[in-house]
Amino acid sequence: MSIQTTSTRPLRVGMIGYAFMGAVHSHAWRSAHRFFDLPLVPELTVLSGRHRDAVEAAADRFGFASVETDWRAVIERDDVDLIDICTPGDLHAEIAIAALEAGKHVLCEKPLANSVEEAERMAAAAEAAAARGARAMCGYTYRRTPALTLARELVRSGRLGVIRQVRAQYLQDWLADENAPMTWRLQAEHAGSGALGDIGAHIIDTAQWLTGQSITGVTALLETFVTSRPLAGERAGLGGHGEVGEDVPRGQVTVDDAAMFMVRFDGGATGVFEATRFALGRKNALRIELSGTTGALAFDFEDNNVLEFFDGAGPATEQGFRRILVTEPDHPYAGAWWPPGHGLGYEHGFTHQVVDLVRAIAAGQQPTPSFADGLAVQRVLGAVATSAGDGSRWVPVGG
Amino acid sequence: MSIQTTSTRPLRVGMIGYAFMGAVHSHAWRSAHRFFDLPLVPELTVLSGRHRDAVEAAADRFGFASVETDWRAVIERDDVDLIDICTPGDLHAEIAIAALEAGKHVLCEKPLANSVEEAERMAAAAEAAAARGARAMCGYTYRRTPALTLARELVRSGRLGVIRQVRAQYLQDWLADENAPMTWRLQAEHAGSGALGDIGAHIIDTAQWLTGQSITGVTALLETFVTSRPLAGERAGLGGHGEVGEDVPRGQVTVDDAAMFMVRFDGGATGVFEATRFALGRKNALRIELSGTTGALAFDFEDNNVLEFFDGAGPATEQGFRRILVTEPDHPYAGAWWPPGHGLGYEHGFTHQVVDLVRAIAAGQQPTPSFADGLAVQRVLGAVATSAGDGSRWVPVGG
Amino acid sequence: MSIQTTSTRPLRVGMIGYAFMGAVHSHAWRSAHRFFDLPLVPELTVLSGRHRDAVEAAADRFGFASVETDWRAVIERDDVDLIDICTPGDLHAEIAIAALEAGKHVLCEKPLANSVEEAERMAAAAEAAAARGARAMCGYTYRRTPALTLARELVRSGRLGVIRQVRAQYLQDWLADENAPMTWRLQAEHAGSGALGDIGAHIIDTAQWLTGQSITGVTALLETFVTSRPLAGERAGLGGHGEVGEDVPRGQVTVDDAAMFMVRFDGGATGVFEATRFALGRKNALRIELSGTTGALAFDFEDNNVLEFFDGAGPATEQGFRRILVTEPDHPYAGAWWPPGHGLGYEHGFTHQVVDLVRAIAAGQQPTPSFADGLAVQRVLGAVATSAGDGSRWVPVGG
Amino acid sequence: MSIQTTSTRPLRVGMIGYAFMGAVHSHAWRSAHRFFDLPLVPELTVLSGRHRDAVEAAADRFGFASVETDWRAVIERDDVDLIDICTPGDLHAEIAIAALEAGKHVLCEKPLANSVEEAERMAAAAEAAAARGARAMCGYTYRRTPALTLARELVRSGRLGVIRQVRAQYLQDWLADENAPMTWRLQAEHAGSGALGDIGAHIIDTAQWLTGQSITGVTALLETFVTSRPLAGERAGLGGHGEVGEDVPRGQVTVDDAAMFMVRFDGGATGVFEATRFALGRKNALRIELSGTTGALAFDFEDNNVLEFFDGAGPATEQGFRRILVTEPDHPYAGAWWPPGHGLGYEHGFTHQVVDLVRAIAAGQQPTPSFADGLAVQRVLGAVATSAGDGSRWVPVGG
Repeated sequence: MSIQTTSTRPLRVGMIGYAFMGAVHSHAWRSAHRFFDLPLVPELTVLSGRHRDAVEAAADRFGFASVETDWRAVIERDDVDLIDICTPGDLHAEIAIAALEAGKHVLCEKPLANSVEEAERMAAAAEAAAARGARAMCGYTYRRTPALTLARELVRSGRLGVIRQVRAQYLQDWLADENAPMTWRLQAEHAGSGALGDIGAHIIDTAQWLTGQSITGVTALLETFVTSRPLAGERAGLGGHGEVGEDVPRGQVTVDDAAMFMVRFDGGATGVFEATRFALGRKNALRIELSGTTGALAFDFEDNNVLEFFDGAGPATEQGFRRILVTEPDHPYAGAWWPPGHGLGYEHGFTHQVVDLVRAIAAGQQPTPSFADGLAVQRVLGAVATSAGDGSRWVPVGG
Repeated sequence: MSIQTTSTRPLRVGMIGYAFMGAVHSHAWRSAHRFFDLPLVPELTVLSGRHRDAVEAAADRFGFASVETDWRAVIERDDVDLIDICTPGDLHAEIAIAALEAGKHVLCEKPLANSVEEAERMAAAAEAAAARGARAMCGYTYRRTPALTLARELVRSGRLGVIRQVRAQYLQDWLADENAPMTWRLQAEHAGSGALGDIGAHIIDTAQWLTGQSITGVTALLETFVTSRPLAGERAGLGGHGEVGEDVPRGQVTVDDAAMFMVRFDGGATGVFEATRFALGRKNALRIELSGTTGALAFDFEDNNVLEFFDGAGPATEQGFRRILVTEPDHPYAGAWWPPGHGLGYEHGFTHQVVDLVRAIAAGQQPTPSFADGLAVQRVLGAVATSAGDGSRWVPVGG
Repeated sequence: MSIQTTSTRPLRVGMIGYAFMGAVHSHAWRSAHRFFDLPLVPELTVLSGRHRDAVEAAADRFGFASVETDWRAVIERDDVDLIDICTPGDLHAEIAIAALEAGKHVLCEKPLANSVEEAERMAAAAEAAAARGARAMCGYTYRRTPALTLARELVRSGRLGVIRQVRAQYLQDWLADENAPMTWRLQAEHAGSGALGDIGAHIIDTAQWLTGQSITGVTALLETFVTSRPLAGERAGLGGHGEVGEDVPRGQVTVDDAAMFMVRFDGGATGVFEATRFALGRKNALRIELSGTTGALAFDFEDNNVLEFFDGAGPATEQGFRRILVTEPDHPYAGAWWPPGHGLGYEHGFTHQVVDLVRAIAAGQQPTPSFADGLAVQRVLGAVATSAGDGSRWVPVGG
Repeated sequence: MSIQTTSTRPLRVGMIGYAFMGAVHSHAWRSAHRFFDLPLVPELTVLSGRHRDAVEAAADRFGFASVETDWRAVIERDDVDLIDICTPGDLHAEIAIAALEAGKHVLCEKPLANSVEEAERMAAAAEAAAARGARAMCGYTYRRTPALTLARELVRSGRLGVIRQVRAQYLQDWLADENAPMTWRLQAEHAGSGALGDIGAHIIDTAQWLTGQSITGVTALLETFVTSRPLAGERAGLGGHGEVGEDVPRGQVTVDDAAMFMVRFDGGATGVFEATRFALGRKNALRIELSGTTGALAFDFEDNNVLEFFDGAGPATEQGFRRILVTEPDHPYAGAWWPPGHGLGYEHGFTHQVVDLVRAIAAGQQPTPSFADGLAVQRVLGAVATSAGDGSRWVPVGG
């Protein structure tokens, strides 16, 4: 934790949306330069939302200097360098493309879009913008959990040999109660899909990134266990984890509650995936296990500072999954924080995302995950939906 | 652990096959009446195998009074009450049907058979034999791991509510080395299938039994990662977990290395299953998790004395998966053994199997799992193979 | 995570010291009002340190508006409401007493002092200052780890019955390497003691606070395994977790490397304590287990979002330590942060400390832990040193 | 698991006592030659107990060929080669010395005796008997848990470097209920001491054996939380884990409920020990952790097939406690049993004890632990009692 003066050149952020993702993104923009040396200093310039009172309160809470009630106004402002899109998925494409065309850098929450078609247009816009110096990044933030970044390094350095099998789960339980209220996340027109796009997208991206392999085909099953939910107001809630009584009117759930799919990767690996919001007792269990020819890795976000590594080298009598506490000074990102064993939390991945994005912008380089990476995930999401809708038949992932 | 005199009426056992399963079955037959009050005392009457020297050595080691080199001779003997079939799957049907027709009780290792057709004939033979007082049981032994028996009791008593999701894995790694030798377990003509029938069968049976629901359809993926293996002799090995050099001739692997499938149950639940012998670092990880509306359960055989139970009742602030050490006097089977916390091992399930089988025989009742239960598993195995062979399309499980 | 406008009345902070504790305290002062509704808004007014260049760099990094190079100047400033003492222990008493006498609120890092005598004077000063409206708090921050706060609530509500046994460990390994460099933490004149005061103090405070019982006597053993260390500059490092070569001159370690002690509490409980920086592989394992007549609790900071709770009520067959993920909306502090399962890290306890301190100041109430609480710990530390220096004889904890 | 004919030369066993230890010892005598090649085949010749009906029932259950009601008669029998002492500790010395003087081999349960004086006489008798070819072994069986045997091998091969710290706990909870009934284990005249000698003895032996170091001095605390217990009959119970009502008369508990002590070893290590029967929720948690200069080990019998090993070699970024599942073919004892991951239970240590004892007898070698090893434990137990009775002062362990 060295004490150094970072640059005083600003990176002026306009954020659109201020719910759960807005809160954690704001924290990251405020904190990154306090712990990392950055070539540009983020400034929270403007926050945008449709309801003036609410957005003003949020701006005050988050530390933004001004507000807008129309996202187009944010893009038009000269004092904004980067647009941070924290809205539901149905707005991603329109905002991102407009921002890129206006020459702004863009950070867009995941999934990149609600359809492959939107994602393709966004990726094309990002590519065109890159030629003009505007950078676009898709927020698959878990890549920057130190334990997963370390996992990627171990794979890349060959410690696992050839990866043969992937098992990935993203288990939550916040909808297990059939009276948990309706939110935009359960409406296809806003969210595109349910568990599939919200959390399934994370394990798809994590798996493709960790293995360095692309998914080439899928067979899938989608299920909606609870088909109606109490209505608690339009687009209510910051995650919608509350509960309401049974006497309120109920709306139709138009997305999946659980998504299960099996895949093949272009490097020869197979994979089993499950994303669900009905795994009672599992709160945020993003789990991934990679089985290679010479090593294996296992991770569970409910124990986010730990990576389990099985090294197949050495005598069999001394082998075992080792619990690496990813808090050492030489671990990814960890040296900027606390001494070993003083763990990090959920939001640190977002801070690291800001760090890498700011550095890429200053260096004139492409940050990752790119919109093309986001599109790659979207194509898998699309294939999953197609397979599930057609008797689970094998569906190749289109290129 | 009460000290009581058990009956002195014998149950005379003729065992066919003496490899891994023969060793653990023998231990169970020798030990059951030492810890449990039994109405009949097992006697190790005869052991059968094709090679006289080897079967004599095994009989001496296991404690059998005599040997035969033709299994038909065992069935013909008047001094044998029960035939214990520990052979590869290709002999199950012929032996079991002959034994039942000869009026012997039968304990048959799993999977019940190598095909649905064989299993159907076996189930029919068992039904016919039952009318004549001969009992047949299929050795899905994990049902009698105390933690899983407790799990069944918790489900049955309603503690989980309606079960919505099942995730089941059986992860081993003894074939991860591409030079692990050929065994009969890798030859379709002897084993029927690979990971699917050997270990996938266990999680199918466990899942159907625990939930009390039947699988109605599947979509599946089978994969063989290593297609040839060093030949180390015909039907070599007791499990074949050794290794040989690379200069020996290699034989073709004709079964799957890994089986992945997704299912629907007749009670509305969905399930994700994976059976593999390539999960590096996982040695015998039979894992199952049930997510219900009001509770959840998780088990891993690598920690076989533990059942994890999430009780959704009570305040959310006090909920969590609790690690039940299933060694209390009132836990299933546990009271016959040691004080709390002094755990049991792999073989105890086989001893409990003997206990329940002997009691059922003495009581003139049907033991479980029955051959019909074994057939039900076989039908799922069949559907998995069909789906995997036909583009992972959805395949109903035939009735 | 509600969006509300907090007060705009400031609480102006002057911080003295800017190493590890300065970094984490600054983060807490910057962040608290972003997630919690506070009656006063912290402002980072001035940072103090002896070396101008270094303190200016730190002030820039941490976000302080100005610097001083003499802590007395900070206390004299009219625009400072609260003095946050992040120096080594040898300066605590002088600064804290001066600050309180100047009418400033004080937050003082732990251990409160380097001797009982100093701590007594500090506690007296705090009591006198309280009468004048100045508040003093001692930074035993782990009390505000949500899992430990929940533990305190469970004890207080009687869920454990009468507590009979405490086992507490604080295991680190950053000195296991005999060439880890000298730091002020290994010099008695600055740190007072070694593992005892640095981390042993934490488990003493945690144990007394959790149980609601006071330690009445001790028997103790102190040990210094490595008696000299490479010198890497005076008072080097921010925790001093690096390494240096063997050719550098070595200085004398004048504190304990490990402290072991057994205690009695005034409520009848016994306790076993160990604090060490030589437990290879343990990075920050602050562990405490309470065994009561009807319940038990276990915690390990290396899995800081989890509290294990054994409820002795209910049938023995369903009992087990349950792993409570302390991230539910109704868990202490957790509702201000992320959805369930999205864990918190080390620094959040400091943020919660700021929240409670600011609220106590605004309400005119005594924050906890008070200096009297800090003194109570100091008396145990003193008794431990006395016992260890006198053949481990039983030493009552003086009042 | 090779199939070989073991010797047919018998080793004829006379067992004295038939409660918990008698049951597990019998199982070991019956099973050892079924899984291991032994030079002598154990025969269960005679079982001895004071009450004829009970001992006859036990002999029938355990498989003994005859009974005696006076242990002296067993020693006098010509057809007995080995005396297995499974009585409470107050009879150990008399029986063992008589047996050794009669030329019998002896296996004596732990603790070796109820006093140092008895243990000294026993060790002398064993030494004298050894000259005449009679072997004596003390039953510190946990040494033969494969995970702990592996731990010893890792220490011996230098993987831990110099061991600096030991932390050892033996946590049970079967007396946490104040109405758990009186047993001989709570009566000083029969058991000598309470948790100290029953389970504290195990962690003392394990620690001295694992480290290869001897304890040179102690400071101790003993505590009796529940001073009277319901009387449920003289010397009742096989472990006495049941419960009785509150209206029955209560007897005085004359032993410790918990023993806590800190030690120094002759190799420079320090240690913290706790043995308790009041750690609610802990059933048989024999835990030991060794912290060395280059490696560390941790074990918990509640997960008895696992050894955790921290290897300090290699890059810090890849270090972590690895969970070795001690079931590989090349792990101690494991190759005789099941394939990897198919774990062993509590009784297997006793079977391994028989294996090593029988082999030592046949080879004319001293088995371990010897009575001298048992005496070494007894001296530590004595020093603990002395320290606890004299203000916890430091007490050297006498030679």
